[in-house]
Amino acid sequence: MAEKRIGLQTVKLLNPPSIIGAYTIVGPKEGEGPLKDYFDVVLEDDMWGQESFEKSEVKIQEEAIKGAILKANLSPNDIQYIFSGDLLNQISTSSYTARQLNIAYFGLYGACSTMIESLSLGSMVIDGGFADKVVCATSSHFSSAERQFRFPLEYGSQRPFSSQWTVTGAGATVISSSGNGPYITYITTGKIMDFGIKDTNNMGGAMAPAAIDTISQHFKDTGYTPDDYDLIITGDLGLVGKKIVLELMKKSGYDLSKNYSDCGIKIFDGVEQDTHAGGSGCGCVAVVLNGYIYKEMLKKNLNRVLVVATGALHSPITVLQGESIPGIAHAITVDNLID
Amino acid sequence: MAEKRIGLQTVKLLNPPSIIGAYTIVGPKEGEGPLKDYFDVVLEDDMWGQESFEKSEVKIQEEAIKGAILKANLSPNDIQYIFSGDLLNQISTSSYTARQLNIAYFGLYGACSTMIESLSLGSMVIDGGFADKVVCATSSHFSSAERQFRFPLEYGSQRPFSSQWTVTGAGATVISSSGNGPYITYITTGKIMDFGIKDTNNMGGAMAPAAIDTISQHFKDTGYTPDDYDLIITGDLGLVGKKIVLELMKKSGYDLSKNYSDCGIKIFDGVEQDTHAGGSGCGCVAVVLNGYIYKEMLKKNLNRVLVVATGALHSPITVLQGESIPGIAHAITVDNLID
Repeated sequence: MAEKRIGLQTVKLLNPPSIIGAYTIVGPKEGEGPLKDYFDVVLEDDMWGQESFEKSEVKIQEEAIKGAILKANLSPNDIQYIFSGDLLNQISTSSYTARQLNIAYFGLYGACSTMIESLSLGSMVIDGGFADKVVCATSSHFSSAERQFRFPLEYGSQRPFSSQWTVTGAGATVISSSGNGPYITYITTGKIMDFGIKDTNNMGGAMAPAAIDTISQHFKDTGYTPDDYDLIITGDLGLVGKKIVLELMKKSGYDLSKNYSDCGIKIFDGVEQDTHAGGSGCGCVAVVLNGYIYKEMLKKNLNRVLVVATGALHSPITVLQGESIPGIAHAITVDNLID
Repeated sequence: MAEKRIGLQTVKLLNPPSIIGAYTIVGPKEGEGPLKDYFDVVLEDDMWGQESFEKSEVKIQEEAIKGAILKANLSPNDIQYIFSGDLLNQISTSSYTARQLNIAYFGLYGACSTMIESLSLGSMVIDGGFADKVVCATSSHFSSAERQFRFPLEYGSQRPFSSQWTVTGAGATVISSSGNGPYITYITTGKIMDFGIKDTNNMGGAMAPAAIDTISQHFKDTGYTPDDYDLIITGDLGLVGKKIVLELMKKSGYDLSKNYSDCGIKIFDGVEQDTHAGGSGCGCVAVVLNGYIYKEMLKKNLNRVLVVATGALHSPITVLQGESIPGIAHAITVDNLID
């Protein structure tokens, strides 16, 4: 068996890559939420001087990547690969961003799981001896996502309470073969779970089975228990999905009640900000990880975190054709200490 | 520097993964072309009993992956990761395919470069010690792509002579840490090149600069010359892009006239089959590689091949917003022999 595999779906990094730079840019609404003090840039206007939502999203992702590279005291020439993706058709945000950076580029699509997909592959490429430094990034924009996946904003459609609010923001992480941590130590890669949910206003319900599967498998593969973590955080199941995870994990013998949260719940004050079940979008886990989690780990308030990013892998066309929503969840362990 | 890097954009696999299974399924038109005898399945009807083009494409990709796994004398349980992508929004073909297979899944988007993006990452994950066996796959379908990127087929739009014809087909490759070859020995990962072309009916012209950049960089990084290869093949530049590559590479001192071809040109008889500049789509390089190239390598008619898959990374929205088309090219060396 391949030397770094442990269990069915997990790999252990023998030379764990270190996060050496992280950067976040969010929109005005995210900048009014509970995590506002953790973000590097809060935009006053989510168009950021651009002529379309899509061009604004490119600028946000590009500046987040440049910011992360600068935080690592590097220049783009020092980075060997970009691993990035986003929600827009043909991941156009990421490709137009990579066009500006002159770095070898792997485009990914994992819907809202993309940030952890990118860190999983980036970490394996570094630990495998193929690169010293890579940047991993994702973004989303409320207005570009809303008109692509739901309705033009001008319609003013009503949103049911199970719906989530796409985060405007981008997060970028520079990881390196050397550094002082936090480190990426384990990667548990998800399989697709589909329990037949067809309601695109209930993504949390559609993705919860994948989160449960990946978290359970992670514990089985690594031997860790919930108590070994300071924080276990999904992104983004919102209120509906979080409830399902807590209940079903408890039935499987894992009590997550003490240290489990969700990026979509943390980023907004759902009542005050009228975001219903919580935040979503590739950018949500990206800014919570590179803002809140990273900075709390640097302060040693958190020392070992399991980040489980969930993605809903439908498209508007598949939903119109009567298909249900496939979910996936990718997890990484971020740890201040390594053996 | 990371031990497996050579030059600026290339890595050398120290334990080169072996191709141990390959499978191709193509549509009726591809089954009438010059490569028809190399494909494992030629469909009589490109709907394959499904109720939409999109569902047919899922069936084609799924059966190609299952076919490749069977050819390797394995079952899906033996495979640790799927690396796959396609042209459809949210790479829905690949996700709905992965839903059927119960294998950990990394979704990719590289437009028509996706087959080599998937083999690049799959190879690094194996050589890095994270997996023993992975499957890499892509697909495209003329009718699902045409209505998404261009016009509904019912319009009967005229096609200019620089346009290409999206291949209906899927190719899948099982690669392994052990095997008797052919082996993947080098990976040269592309940067985005954009020379300002905005005409989506001239993808060959838009992607040629990326191909030139990656091929030139591959020679610089590895020390190989064109004469070291039995075949250097791009996918899919068509007639327009091929001409640009030959001319500009010659100006840079690389004479490719003896052993250079293009998957989009090889798959169709452009005059007889009215495909204008040639084939395109993720499925094109996938079926040419897993059909023609793989089988000719097994017969030792080809022994070392540079496969350079090119992708046009625009979206219909970015083009409507006045953006030009970013191109990328990813290359791998497939070799019957290893040191």
